[in-house]
Amino acid sequence: MSRNVFDNPSFFSKYMELRKDYNHNDLLEHPGMCSLLPALKGKSVIDLGCGYGSYAHEFLDRGASSYLGIDSSENMIRRAMEDNGGEGIEYLRLNLDDLSSLSGSFDLAYSSLVFHYIEDFDRLLKNINRLLNPGGILLFSQMHPFVTASPSYNGYFEGDYFAFTSYPEEGRREGRWFKEKVVSYHRRLSSIINSISNNGFFIERILEPVPSDDAIRELPSLEKDLVRPTFLIVRARKDYS
Amino acid sequence: MSRNVFDNPSFFSKYMELRKDYNHNDLLEHPGMCSLLPALKGKSVIDLGCGYGSYAHEFLDRGASSYLGIDSSENMIRRAMEDNGGEGIEYLRLNLDDLSSLSGSFDLAYSSLVFHYIEDFDRLLKNINRLLNPGGILLFSQMHPFVTASPSYNGYFEGDYFAFTSYPEEGRREGRWFKEKVVSYHRRLSSIINSISNNGFFIERILEPVPSDDAIRELPSLEKDLVRPTFLIVRARKDYS
Repeated sequence: MSRNVFDNPSFFSKYMELRKDYNHNDLLEHPGMCSLLPALKGKSVIDLGCGYGSYAHEFLDRGASSYLGIDSSENMIRRAMEDNGGEGIEYLRLNLDDLSSLSGSFDLAYSSLVFHYIEDFDRLLKNINRLLNPGGILLFSQMHPFVTASPSYNGYFEGDYFAFTSYPEEGRREGRWFKEKVVSYHRRLSSIINSISNNGFFIERILEPVPSDDAIRELPSLEKDLVRPTFLIVRARKDYS
Repeated sequence: MSRNVFDNPSFFSKYMELRKDYNHNDLLEHPGMCSLLPALKGKSVIDLGCGYGSYAHEFLDRGASSYLGIDSSENMIRRAMEDNGGEGIEYLRLNLDDLSSLSGSFDLAYSSLVFHYIEDFDRLLKNINRLLNPGGILLFSQMHPFVTASPSYNGYFEGDYFAFTSYPEEGRREGRWFKEKVVSYHRRLSSIINSISNNGFFIERILEPVPSDDAIRELPSLEKDLVRPTFLIVRARKDYS
């Protein structure tokens, strides 16, 4: 998102409202990401698209030595500095398309539900690879290609079935969220994996998270994830060579 | 398939009839597989689920030094020996679940549209890994998890949309082909990839083949593959360590 939708005041306030209650991210995406976290003791973390820094302290609590949160939204970074700052924590307002302007060396590049907004995935991966130490981990989640495939962004449910179209055709998708236009980029699962392999990473693990019975009791709409996954999570390791 | 459906005479003759015309496999799966073939000069090939050995001579023409075709169907192996034998070519009737009884060392393990019939994918991969030389290639195609997901085996098309269900739930699926019951095993794409990684392979490339305009002119029903891929193709390399 080059003009960041989170810098639209009405969108931002509605988004922050949504984050107050338990949701898909809390019950499905975040547990999935946590299950694939490497050991963090003494490690440096970069969080790509950190939002308001809601996980900064969680990384330090897990032993990380430093945390750099990056987001392109002025609102998000201001909120992050106010609410989730502290020793070992830094924030930087930067568009992920402009990562080439950043130097540093990190052990973990973490990114939650942002990569489907990025048009040039290969450039992003090249930059992340450069910012990682040899053997460093890239752990990211994004909307599943099932969800990004259709031109209308999401597909539709019909009974227990989920319908989508245009999966092979990659590129720009426009959806609506709180009445605002949100642009995403659809890539086939194969393209995502090939780009990662082609940019100096080994795929370590892929997750299409499935909700637990407890999670469904907490949030019944998670039942849809028993039909088709909402999220894709990938853990890859930077080549040592 | 432990009791091989291809050993049912009526099924076998209908299948052989189908193979006479251009079909999905010829126009989409086979070109995709060929595009990922490694250099074959002087290499030994094992073809897992070789059918009637229709590609045996193609491998030798591409420079392979030897070809071993394996299939569990007596009909298929007899036909392969009759029609597609020759110097450097061997056939063996063996169920892919029983690969542990085979020894040998191969440079390429090739398998076309068979792995979705195999219940124990990890055991299969372990056996293939053992049969490959270090750095050897596994190249296989299977029905795409979109297709194997629904309990009815395939999903359904509605207009330009494809609908499926039960993607997260792995396991046995029963479908019909020429009125015969055919049992397949659904695995999520993430599970397929993780199993490959966990059994001593690096993923080199994944393909969800898209039909060319020429192919669609030849066989208009291929248009459905512009909605959702029918096939998944994976090329992986055996770890050198």
